[in-house]
Amino acid sequence: MSEAPHLTFDLDTPGVSTGHLVVPKGADFEALSLPVFSCNRGDGASLLITGGNHGNELQGPIVARRLVEWLPEAQRCGRIIIVPEINPLAVQAWTRNTPIDGKNLNRVFPGRSDGSVSERIADAISRLLLPMVDTVLDLHSFGPTWDCAPSIITHPIADVDLMTKTVRISEAFKLPVTLLWEHNDTAGMFDTWVHGQGKTFICTEFGGGTVFCGGAVGAEALAIYEAGVRNGLIALGLIEGKAEYPTFRQHKSGQTLETNPSDELKSPAPGIFEPRCSVVDEVKQGDLIGILHPMDSLSADSIDIRAPTASIVFAIRSAGYVQGNQEVAILARPLVH
Amino acid sequence: MSEAPHLTFDLDTPGVSTGHLVVPKGADFEALSLPVFSCNRGDGASLLITGGNHGNELQGPIVARRLVEWLPEAQRCGRIIIVPEINPLAVQAWTRNTPIDGKNLNRVFPGRSDGSVSERIADAISRLLLPMVDTVLDLHSFGPTWDCAPSIITHPIADVDLMTKTVRISEAFKLPVTLLWEHNDTAGMFDTWVHGQGKTFICTEFGGGTVFCGGAVGAEALAIYEAGVRNGLIALGLIEGKAEYPTFRQHKSGQTLETNPSDELKSPAPGIFEPRCSVVDEVKQGDLIGILHPMDSLSADSIDIRAPTASIVFAIRSAGYVQGNQEVAILARPLVH
Repeated sequence: MSEAPHLTFDLDTPGVSTGHLVVPKGADFEALSLPVFSCNRGDGASLLITGGNHGNELQGPIVARRLVEWLPEAQRCGRIIIVPEINPLAVQAWTRNTPIDGKNLNRVFPGRSDGSVSERIADAISRLLLPMVDTVLDLHSFGPTWDCAPSIITHPIADVDLMTKTVRISEAFKLPVTLLWEHNDTAGMFDTWVHGQGKTFICTEFGGGTVFCGGAVGAEALAIYEAGVRNGLIALGLIEGKAEYPTFRQHKSGQTLETNPSDELKSPAPGIFEPRCSVVDEVKQGDLIGILHPMDSLSADSIDIRAPTASIVFAIRSAGYVQGNQEVAILARPLVH
Repeated sequence: MSEAPHLTFDLDTPGVSTGHLVVPKGADFEALSLPVFSCNRGDGASLLITGGNHGNELQGPIVARRLVEWLPEAQRCGRIIIVPEINPLAVQAWTRNTPIDGKNLNRVFPGRSDGSVSERIADAISRLLLPMVDTVLDLHSFGPTWDCAPSIITHPIADVDLMTKTVRISEAFKLPVTLLWEHNDTAGMFDTWVHGQGKTFICTEFGGGTVFCGGAVGAEALAIYEAGVRNGLIALGLIEGKAEYPTFRQHKSGQTLETNPSDELKSPAPGIFEPRCSVVDEVKQGDLIGILHPMDSLSADSIDIRAPTASIVFAIRSAGYVQGNQEVAILARPLVH
């Protein structure tokens, strides 16, 4: 009989406390201790903030660490629980999936107490943290091989009231894009499990790429993400302040978009993809999105990849080798309410 | 007896021709065909341009592909041979080392005809392409987890005349930085092998990170690199034109720097490193370079990493998990001639 997942401290302690969520040892790996921050100021919204679900998306853990520094002063009411790194094994390996079991933590919820390490992490979170909150904020990026607009993404939710509420609170983060993304790969997502319990799930996508300091990727980008999270906490009534759109590409504004699988642009052949547009670019039919350079022969011409219809570029793959028919861009359109 | 490495066409054909360098099959992997471009305009300098030595540095192959498009019109004399991807296996896997044998192609020169696939690639290049040229231009970046100044890097060369000539031609590329980098890990480098033959080796480091289109990383960065290569070709007398410094961070200028192992800043503890300065920043003693966020416990404070002396930031690690005592920044100082 293995140890049960447990917390090393009492989340109901008033005020600020820190400790660990212990994910028990299993057949494949030793026990994990995930650092947890709790700020409990009584009545009000209750929020779980998680980062590092995918280990190659580091913006989330950094923003979460910053919150740990200023929330004790700022939080006025309610409950906030923060776990900056829910998948430390993947963070340490800089991989999307967990290196021990090869699983995508964001596809194994609600997990299993007797499963592999990703499943045990999901189980510990589902069992011990989720019951304490009414809302989850999961801090993602888009991985190192894509750039995406700083955004909140939600998938269609069958419960219309919850869908409406989710879009409304997502828009309150005032990030440049709020996206309704219809796709079929949602089984086992943290999102899906939380929605199934009638709770609100907010997923930030923090722009992808690697975090450098120069230019838009880096300090400036982290400031946008932190501002977005601050806006969200204001909207949830957890902190005081005035929500404002952060400046992104000289603009202070946001738009709500939708995308579905037919909006994905695919590579016409194997080769090196070179992006030629930027996220949130408005493109007309025929505008250049990127170039595919076949590398098997230097007598083959490079191939232009163009927008099939007027669209807004939500995400674009960075330069890299792609197979034929592999996704290179995700286009989107204004959401028709 | 295995097949010998060979070219599918005659490099001495006048004008433009394309074909393949065939790296023979070995015990570990099938034969490879590396696409080769040749433009042979008679007397003058002779140059081999290579990209994709490390498979997660894609700026080089893209710039090489662009050269293939405009060189036939532009080249006036001499010989240029281009191999955009010398390590297609690593490019396809987006890895620094070759996935089949786990070797760093840039540490196995001059290779072995009966060795593993990386060694066979190095052998084919050393044996069939290197004898045709007096100068090599190898297009690197700094990998996806670092940002570095757009630069030409050279290591100290024992032959003083060759060293002087190498620095002079490197500066003629007019990139923002020319760097003399003293380190000990040079055995088996392509550089070292070429130097040993009394030939000139020029290594661009194209800024690291992933190639996005927005902002300084992306189209703008590729334009800087392409301008630098064009300047170099002008300096070598291969094309006509006026060499000009490309604009980088609002400046049109270049500086020659030096760095040695004591200029590397290391992480004071394991955790997530957050960069807080940019490449080519001039920092004073005590200026903030980055922050190390310990992630084992949320009661541990984040640790500031500061410049030990007045320096110029040559390269900085992007946000990511680091071990204790792992490199997070490479500082440099003006070269004392």
